[in-house]
Amino acid sequence: MSDRPSERLRALGLALPAPPSAKGTYSPVVLEGNRAWVSGQIVTEAGTVVRPGLVDRDVSVDVARDLARRASLQALSLLADRLGSIDRIERFLRVTVYVASSSGFGRQHEVANGATDVLVEVFGEAGRPARAAVGVAGLPLNAPVEVDFLVLTVPSS
Amino acid sequence: MSDRPSERLRALGLALPAPPSAKGTYSPVVLEGNRAWVSGQIVTEAGTVVRPGLVDRDVSVDVARDLARRASLQALSLLADRLGSIDRIERFLRVTVYVASSSGFGRQHEVANGATDVLVEVFGEAGRPARAAVGVAGLPLNAPVEVDFLVLTVPSS
Amino acid sequence: MSDRPSERLRALGLALPAPPSAKGTYSPVVLEGNRAWVSGQIVTEAGTVVRPGLVDRDVSVDVARDLARRASLQALSLLADRLGSIDRIERFLRVTVYVASSSGFGRQHEVANGATDVLVEVFGEAGRPARAAVGVAGLPLNAPVEVDFLVLTVPSS
Repeated sequence: MSDRPSERLRALGLALPAPPSAKGTYSPVVLEGNRAWVSGQIVTEAGTVVRPGLVDRDVSVDVARDLARRASLQALSLLADRLGSIDRIERFLRVTVYVASSSGFGRQHEVANGATDVLVEVFGEAGRPARAAVGVAGLPLNAPVEVDFLVLTVPSS
Repeated sequence: MSDRPSERLRALGLALPAPPSAKGTYSPVVLEGNRAWVSGQIVTEAGTVVRPGLVDRDVSVDVARDLARRASLQALSLLADRLGSIDRIERFLRVTVYVASSSGFGRQHEVANGATDVLVEVFGEAGRPARAAVGVAGLPLNAPVEVDFLVLTVPSS
Repeated sequence: MSDRPSERLRALGLALPAPPSAKGTYSPVVLEGNRAWVSGQIVTEAGTVVRPGLVDRDVSVDVARDLARRASLQALSLLADRLGSIDRIERFLRVTVYVASSSGFGRQHEVANGATDVLVEVFGEAGRPARAAVGVAGLPLNAPVEVDFLVLTVPSS
């Protein structure tokens, strides 16, 4: 993993989506010292939630895992926008993956791997955070997956 | 926003409730360095939860939004109690809004705006945190809304 | 509380379980500066979840409270493994307790006390964190309780 994350992203053929804007009284990213908090990301296209519903009942685990991956790419896009480049991300400290679940569903960790696999692909071990994966009753706009992030950043020089 | 937050609070006609006490093995507020963590706030009056139930089924979105606002005021009251004044809050870093939701409800972000609108009214841009809004199956004492906070504080001089 | 936490643990007759390994792209513990984030802990024995199900419907509050306690001991075991000893834990800053709940259940705080009572028994006031207790629709492998932790550590000398 000698490559920079931005180079690895390219080598993996991954493109960052346009950073989503905040629709409410919150910041997509808050920077303080060498920390960045990224607000809970749900996957949208042109402002509309992609594949709304509960995982397992309305949306398959495979689709949900892919949406979790896309939520991570949205977060990278927001961080690139605020930091100038994802190369200023030093490490992922903590990720929470919220999976909209019907009662009795217990595969939230598989969905969560979608969010963190891509971080490890791009950042190596620095992309392996502490994580909690939980099943929630519902999410904004009936999104099936929401992911939030706490990141350690490289200080500006 | 040249006014101090305590002055703006007054100008807005907002009064802080009495700070709720902890009923269990946790601290309402933990201070460490220039950070303050506020435990999950549910709105109580004289120790009883206000408007218990699930949002949308038992409690309207408008009522829930107002309860989220009151949860933020409870947090401010706890912070004022521990810090001496809300003027020692420098910035809201992160807020999580948990909304007790029946399956299929997807307006958690609207409820969450109740919690963060008031922070922006009182603190300006410093009151605009990173945020996650999620729908949960239930909350302590059947509260419809719970909100937790991570805050950057001004060092004591 | 002049004893060291490791001595108190012994005096209380508590043994730490073997630290569970990560089964996915996350770290059980992330250390950065004087902070440690512990990933969401569900209680397992030989890789199998203990007492799966929803609290109240399938698992009693008493059993769930005990599982929350065991989740905290798992976290201590992971921290001991990474830090060398639990005596390098200075303070528990923040704990989140996720309780798998059927709709209408509202005793998550009683379950959460299982997680934090044991921290106070072992660490005294340093074991009393900011806390959020919430009821979720489901958890990985149908675990009834999941607990995550943010800890202040003593710097290595």
